[in-house]
Amino acid sequence: MPSTIVTLDAPLDMHLHLRDEVMLRNIAKASAATFSGALIMPNLVPPVSSKEALLAYKKRITEAIGEEHFTPYMTLFFKSEYDRAFLESVREELTAIKLYPAGITTNSQGGVSGFDIEALRPSLEAMSDLEIPLCIHGETNGFVMDREAEFVSIYEKLASAFPKLKIIMEHITTKESVAALDRFENLHATITVHHLLITLDDVAGGMLQPHLFCKPIAKRPQDREALLKVALEAHPKVMFGSDSAPHPRHAKETCGCAAGVFTAPIALQLLTELFDTHRSLEHIQAFISGNAQKIYGIAPLSKKVILEKEPFRVPAEYNGVVPMYASEEIAYSIKGVRHG
Amino acid sequence: MPSTIVTLDAPLDMHLHLRDEVMLRNIAKASAATFSGALIMPNLVPPVSSKEALLAYKKRITEAIGEEHFTPYMTLFFKSEYDRAFLESVREELTAIKLYPAGITTNSQGGVSGFDIEALRPSLEAMSDLEIPLCIHGETNGFVMDREAEFVSIYEKLASAFPKLKIIMEHITTKESVAALDRFENLHATITVHHLLITLDDVAGGMLQPHLFCKPIAKRPQDREALLKVALEAHPKVMFGSDSAPHPRHAKETCGCAAGVFTAPIALQLLTELFDTHRSLEHIQAFISGNAQKIYGIAPLSKKVILEKEPFRVPAEYNGVVPMYASEEIAYSIKGVRHG
Repeated sequence: MPSTIVTLDAPLDMHLHLRDEVMLRNIAKASAATFSGALIMPNLVPPVSSKEALLAYKKRITEAIGEEHFTPYMTLFFKSEYDRAFLESVREELTAIKLYPAGITTNSQGGVSGFDIEALRPSLEAMSDLEIPLCIHGETNGFVMDREAEFVSIYEKLASAFPKLKIIMEHITTKESVAALDRFENLHATITVHHLLITLDDVAGGMLQPHLFCKPIAKRPQDREALLKVALEAHPKVMFGSDSAPHPRHAKETCGCAAGVFTAPIALQLLTELFDTHRSLEHIQAFISGNAQKIYGIAPLSKKVILEKEPFRVPAEYNGVVPMYASEEIAYSIKGVRHG
Repeated sequence: MPSTIVTLDAPLDMHLHLRDEVMLRNIAKASAATFSGALIMPNLVPPVSSKEALLAYKKRITEAIGEEHFTPYMTLFFKSEYDRAFLESVREELTAIKLYPAGITTNSQGGVSGFDIEALRPSLEAMSDLEIPLCIHGETNGFVMDREAEFVSIYEKLASAFPKLKIIMEHITTKESVAALDRFENLHATITVHHLLITLDDVAGGMLQPHLFCKPIAKRPQDREALLKVALEAHPKVMFGSDSAPHPRHAKETCGCAAGVFTAPIALQLLTELFDTHRSLEHIQAFISGNAQKIYGIAPLSKKVILEKEPFRVPAEYNGVVPMYASEEIAYSIKGVRHG
């Protein structure tokens, strides 16, 4: 019997942390080798919040990826001070703007406190007019298992107040966020691969697993079921975003471990295995690229990734960063990548 | 203004892990210095499940505590094979028998699988007749946040089937367990100090905190409120049990960290601060000793512990074991201990 071959066309990762400096140089190729492009998160220190910073960061990314065919879709870190003139001046350089509630995750100290619609109106109306999507890390500062569900009312407030603004609920983890998708035409979502695979049980149900600790934290089995349903059917309002977030090993395996799961180099293999296991391979192309192309109106670089159902032993680390499933075997391997 | 002085009489820790060998010798005095006695958990490798093992373990504990005035109240690891003749032969040597569902926590592999009342009846009826309390680690193998609430139906099944058997729900963490206390006369409970202080937010809401990772895992704010209520009023069916569980630093600060919080040397200080903060100091004596004396029918060694409201900097470690609140300041200090 021939083994299963799956070809993915122009895979897109619509939520990626590439960090900066040494880490950027160490891990950028892990995405660029197999993805056609990725939406690059702006939560550097200081955050990317000017045209100059954005262009300079894009240049550093381009240098780090070297010869790879890969588009970094750039974002700015949302500030309510952004006015129409500024947004017009940067429109061509960016794909989206990312909003962080203040202090909610890594390097988000300068984010939004409170969600006063009138205070946000000038910038959000300009974004709406200029068709700049707004990506949001949607968590309150409430109890860790409730933060995302509590934020749904803020998503709904924003979606109602700015009905033409395209809002992306980033890395959703709950059935409440899934349910919100269909209530507002302008709400969309990214889903990570790890939130399709794990629940809080995998993080803290046996031994404590720092390499599976992320924000938002993995939730309940019922939440994962809701995410799986819309991912596996490639619901047109959801798309893949890895939220792959590298930290050096020492920052993960320590007291007070940093949040983030590094999945970039194995995301396509894991997704292919997952869609195959659930007999949903006919929908993987839309989830991994087609839906994002429509939602963002982007035409990615041509890139074909060929995967085969052949066991792959995940490396223990990639340049000092421990990936999800380090040293474990996963079912699919990447057999080749074709450009052009 | 004079500072607050609190004197605790014969404090008892009705759930304590002293481990064995080097660890036992390193940490036994941390309890023996201030507690009058403690109920010693039997989950060694192999578990304490014979009279010989129990007496030998008691001897090792006695050697480890040296000159301290301290009673190790011994337990056996529950086996459904225990028959009446065996239980009669050990009755004088033990204070309780501890039941672990198989595989639910550290060194519990040989525990009970399934809770078939008829299979358990011979041993539990004999225990009931001999007035040997049954201590239970009450968690199912379900989702980590639901395990204890799911186990309540098993507590109720056991409490109904063996109405004269004194059952202790160990280290309860949920409002569901608190509610069960009043539904069955023969249900009692221990509560740890850390479950009165933290929720899952403290473990995984910010950075991941391995030194606060324990089983059962800390739950929701509403659960902590329910625990606080019965602890602070010294509900007659609840008593203090620290579940203090030492692991070497390397076993906590690593991938796949072991479950357990080490509180033995600071438990009395923390409880005094907590009861003081909630203006409930008039109930601390019952919670820390009086209730346990009645529930277990024990008359502890005389020991008076004098605490003063004076900041105490918790050491970074005690013989290689990192305590809760390591290097942080807590409000009460132990000023003296008087025997006899």
